[in-house]
Amino acid sequence: MNRKYAVILGNLGNTKDRFCGGYKDNPSTHEMLAQAAAIPHVSGIELVGTWDIDPENASEMKAALVDLNLTCVSIIPDLFANRLYWKGSYTCTDPVVRRHAVDYTKRMCDIALDLGCETVNIWPGQDGYDYNLTADYAAQREWMCEAIAELATSYPSLRFALEYKPKEPRTHSTLARMADSLLMAQETGCDNVGVCIDTGHAFIGGETVGESIVLAKRGGNRLFHMHFNDNHGAWDDDMIVGSVHTVRYLEILYWLDRTGYAGWLSMDQYPYREDAAGAIGESILWIRKFDELLQTHRGEVDRLITLDDAVQTSRFLRGVLLG
Amino acid sequence: MNRKYAVILGNLGNTKDRFCGGYKDNPSTHEMLAQAAAIPHVSGIELVGTWDIDPENASEMKAALVDLNLTCVSIIPDLFANRLYWKGSYTCTDPVVRRHAVDYTKRMCDIALDLGCETVNIWPGQDGYDYNLTADYAAQREWMCEAIAELATSYPSLRFALEYKPKEPRTHSTLARMADSLLMAQETGCDNVGVCIDTGHAFIGGETVGESIVLAKRGGNRLFHMHFNDNHGAWDDDMIVGSVHTVRYLEILYWLDRTGYAGWLSMDQYPYREDAAGAIGESILWIRKFDELLQTHRGEVDRLITLDDAVQTSRFLRGVLLG
Amino acid sequence: MNRKYAVILGNLGNTKDRFCGGYKDNPSTHEMLAQAAAIPHVSGIELVGTWDIDPENASEMKAALVDLNLTCVSIIPDLFANRLYWKGSYTCTDPVVRRHAVDYTKRMCDIALDLGCETVNIWPGQDGYDYNLTADYAAQREWMCEAIAELATSYPSLRFALEYKPKEPRTHSTLARMADSLLMAQETGCDNVGVCIDTGHAFIGGETVGESIVLAKRGGNRLFHMHFNDNHGAWDDDMIVGSVHTVRYLEILYWLDRTGYAGWLSMDQYPYREDAAGAIGESILWIRKFDELLQTHRGEVDRLITLDDAVQTSRFLRGVLLG
Amino acid sequence: MNRKYAVILGNLGNTKDRFCGGYKDNPSTHEMLAQAAAIPHVSGIELVGTWDIDPENASEMKAALVDLNLTCVSIIPDLFANRLYWKGSYTCTDPVVRRHAVDYTKRMCDIALDLGCETVNIWPGQDGYDYNLTADYAAQREWMCEAIAELATSYPSLRFALEYKPKEPRTHSTLARMADSLLMAQETGCDNVGVCIDTGHAFIGGETVGESIVLAKRGGNRLFHMHFNDNHGAWDDDMIVGSVHTVRYLEILYWLDRTGYAGWLSMDQYPYREDAAGAIGESILWIRKFDELLQTHRGEVDRLITLDDAVQTSRFLRGVLLG
Repeated sequence: MNRKYAVILGNLGNTKDRFCGGYKDNPSTHEMLAQAAAIPHVSGIELVGTWDIDPENASEMKAALVDLNLTCVSIIPDLFANRLYWKGSYTCTDPVVRRHAVDYTKRMCDIALDLGCETVNIWPGQDGYDYNLTADYAAQREWMCEAIAELATSYPSLRFALEYKPKEPRTHSTLARMADSLLMAQETGCDNVGVCIDTGHAFIGGETVGESIVLAKRGGNRLFHMHFNDNHGAWDDDMIVGSVHTVRYLEILYWLDRTGYAGWLSMDQYPYREDAAGAIGESILWIRKFDELLQTHRGEVDRLITLDDAVQTSRFLRGVLLG
Repeated sequence: MNRKYAVILGNLGNTKDRFCGGYKDNPSTHEMLAQAAAIPHVSGIELVGTWDIDPENASEMKAALVDLNLTCVSIIPDLFANRLYWKGSYTCTDPVVRRHAVDYTKRMCDIALDLGCETVNIWPGQDGYDYNLTADYAAQREWMCEAIAELATSYPSLRFALEYKPKEPRTHSTLARMADSLLMAQETGCDNVGVCIDTGHAFIGGETVGESIVLAKRGGNRLFHMHFNDNHGAWDDDMIVGSVHTVRYLEILYWLDRTGYAGWLSMDQYPYREDAAGAIGESILWIRKFDELLQTHRGEVDRLITLDDAVQTSRFLRGVLLG
Repeated sequence: MNRKYAVILGNLGNTKDRFCGGYKDNPSTHEMLAQAAAIPHVSGIELVGTWDIDPENASEMKAALVDLNLTCVSIIPDLFANRLYWKGSYTCTDPVVRRHAVDYTKRMCDIALDLGCETVNIWPGQDGYDYNLTADYAAQREWMCEAIAELATSYPSLRFALEYKPKEPRTHSTLARMADSLLMAQETGCDNVGVCIDTGHAFIGGETVGESIVLAKRGGNRLFHMHFNDNHGAWDDDMIVGSVHTVRYLEILYWLDRTGYAGWLSMDQYPYREDAAGAIGESILWIRKFDELLQTHRGEVDRLITLDDAVQTSRFLRGVLLG
Repeated sequence: MNRKYAVILGNLGNTKDRFCGGYKDNPSTHEMLAQAAAIPHVSGIELVGTWDIDPENASEMKAALVDLNLTCVSIIPDLFANRLYWKGSYTCTDPVVRRHAVDYTKRMCDIALDLGCETVNIWPGQDGYDYNLTADYAAQREWMCEAIAELATSYPSLRFALEYKPKEPRTHSTLARMADSLLMAQETGCDNVGVCIDTGHAFIGGETVGESIVLAKRGGNRLFHMHFNDNHGAWDDDMIVGSVHTVRYLEILYWLDRTGYAGWLSMDQYPYREDAAGAIGESILWIRKFDELLQTHRGEVDRLITLDDAVQTSRFLRGVLLG
């Protein structure tokens, strides 16, 4: 497999949390682009709507990407930082807000077409709920379905990747895990609606990503995009790949190949206190090393997963990881 | 709504864990039946295959249930305690074991028909995996699908409720959460395959049960059965309803009604160190109280879930719970 | 027991997260004070250093509190929002930063003395680590101990309450749970160092708060302060008391009384999308109701905790909660 | 450092869970001893009281260990499988049971003396509680303290290692984490009371084991024993070391050395469906490989933990782990 690596531009920007308004200085878009392009093996970029790109700067961005030899891998509409969506975007109880969210996303779709970008990555972070007995789950699912279906029908040449996440910023997200997102994609009735796996989101949802990849394959070949990062298992820490977990990345790459995934491997981190380009670059280098191991030992992995024998698997992993 | 309450017979038996082989004495089936029938409001019983019922004692059991005025609500084939299935039943890599599991389940289906029991509750506890890179997830999903489809096709008058659980006894179960179980049910192509929600299993999977009920409704009206218990949030503690959580049970009953659920509310606990009949009876009394509150205030709940206002919801809950 | 209720002033301000820079408008300090004073039963206020109070506005604040009949319950030095402390305050590897943090805290101690405030609540949110093999845990513990000891020795008439929290903003905090914070308090050798329990922090740390209160009592009568809120069990959601959990608050109040706690019950929430004063007010009303139940049934609770009988406890709780 | 490896004899026996009474056949003690002795690098053995050893077979066991050239590393009194202790051993509300537990432990101490075994490993698995408002935490702590103090005072030449675990079989254990166990050890007033870290227990308690080792050092040099295994982060899966986590074992070994730990590294697994000797042997081989890496790169680790720079740490780990 020929892996293609990308990065989300905003990962190179300032970092903040609910306590501290900014840990770093705010770099310019130009600086971030230059940094992204300089990370070894990066050939793709993801742009967050409004933050990085809007109708006004689209042609300028297009030129800049050509200059840097970067492909725009996806546009991520900003459905999470805009205060207007504080109580939901596609699932807000206010129909005016819902309309706004869909119309705004369409503007981002237009930009995607203009940039030759094939994928719109939908992370509806504010859609969900915080407290029991404050939300109508039936209405939320229906509104989400209608919004996604309208988008997918209006832009049949684009692919819509639903990025799920169990929680944050809401205590519960409407699109929480692979399987419920697949059901949503299927309910839209549109083949150009699929799913984006963020490895860290899947980890905190208790998923085995290799198995989630299989679910997406069975559910209509709907794995459209991949975000990579690592965490300690309970929260979206958005850390460097390999800093906590090891074995599961090998397994992820294996199942991506087994299911014929030909999309991008995009780094999605949040380097609060780290040199951003360094942290992102590390993730790619870890993945490339895991990939090397897999290429060398694919036949052995093929065999091990049919054996159901943890001792043999351990012996293999110990050998390839620790030599 | 007219709630119907049931209990799993084995809940009244001995309890053990991986350290201690038995905390209590082993009561006879007769004693357990008498105890179940004596729990106020219980009119249904679930029987575990082999443990409680087999072809040899089926007619005797049938008579006993008539005597006690108990309806057999479901048969639960034993796919979890039989050492033969230690590495999976429907998804074991050994085709002989898979065949055995399906054939055994069919025998339980025959008994269900004989007892006039409409539902076979499938909890394939041993189907899953423990370690990364020891299982072929694609094969496991396919084998599970084939097995369930064969059963559902062979017994079109029975309903098959897939009981999901994120883990235990395996570290990861093949049927882990509502949405992946719904996908499985749909993949079988059989309308008589649905899902059983065990509230505690859903809690540890990070689900909001009210929302899971909505998913099942949208996914083909496939909520076939309900198991009730409570836990501390991280493990299947199988505790008395209401001992940890309160608000969410009110929400569960609300959504059962909103989606037209007309099935049984069955208690599924594991009273390690408690008087079993007392613990089960408590759960029913908690649910009945929650139900009373809901009946009285249904209109207010209808209104609250459209408001997205946690303060108003809190004020309501405080009033009805604490007076 | 005569409960005294307080609120952290900043809870009434704007709310933000790492994605959205502000969900609300920024109210003035004056507006927040007026709102706090208007919440029924509130007679105490906690002020965050720098945000709410500094040497320049201290006398003005003092007068305002007198006007509003509010007691300053604690000063919380800002060790978490100042970018200078992004890699730790008392435990930063840079000795200049460590010195700055101690000196800054001393200025806050001076203000506390000036305001007649008895408690300095230390939440060293940035002290900890994110990744394995990036921190010297031995040095961190020692630096923390030295800083706290210097403060406690310099201000013997003040009480220093260490507020622990398992994580956030770091993936791991140096003061993570009750027991390690108690060890730290003891290691300082100062009787005026104790602990603040934030109920939500304890919940996500897997603690039973009633038991944590007992630990603090045994460890030198060191429970100095209490922060109240609720959450879903896995993250510091800072929600309204009673919105998720019920029984445990009754237990908390019971053990506060059993150990002779005479301090404040302060609300510490983060009402992202809620009316702040309403959300805080709700928490107090829930606690007061729990307190009423406890006063009425204290003898029964005394008895139940000696019985180790979950069925009897359930029957009691069902009766007092649901009537 | 010269590492010494041991195994708990019972790890080689049958495995069961609350559903299945036995996944394997029951081997004889003789067979298990032979298997343990044959695992490469194993020179120590831990014996569970009553299961493996009692006053009747002590001299026979002593001879067998000499024959196999195995050192008895610890005796683990059975405080968890005996039904008598179903509601607690040292903290049972029944004083007769508490007395029985202490007296029984003393008989195990006599055997330890007889076998020349220096450490009694106390895992009071049944001591804790399941439900809120069913236990008197103050009494439980006091009873535990009295029992341990009596044992430690009666056998001053033995070392008592308290093995903590957040939960299971109770939903909450009295000795739950490093820091509360250290407080308990200190409260006994006995220098021969310390702590045993089971790595998996610490993982599910949210601890960083490296930091826990530092706490034990500061708390009176009380790290007496180490149990090794791995898990998925939420439950005591008792898996092969290295099967889920990698980096943290390197860190554990580093801090063991930094604090001068000279005790045993004992494997404590529960190979439900694995060849037991193979699974245990794997863990030792992983640890030995981690140890090799540490020996080679100790200076670099010394440097990295002072830098607080995750990118440099990542680069180092990637290099040594993946080559």
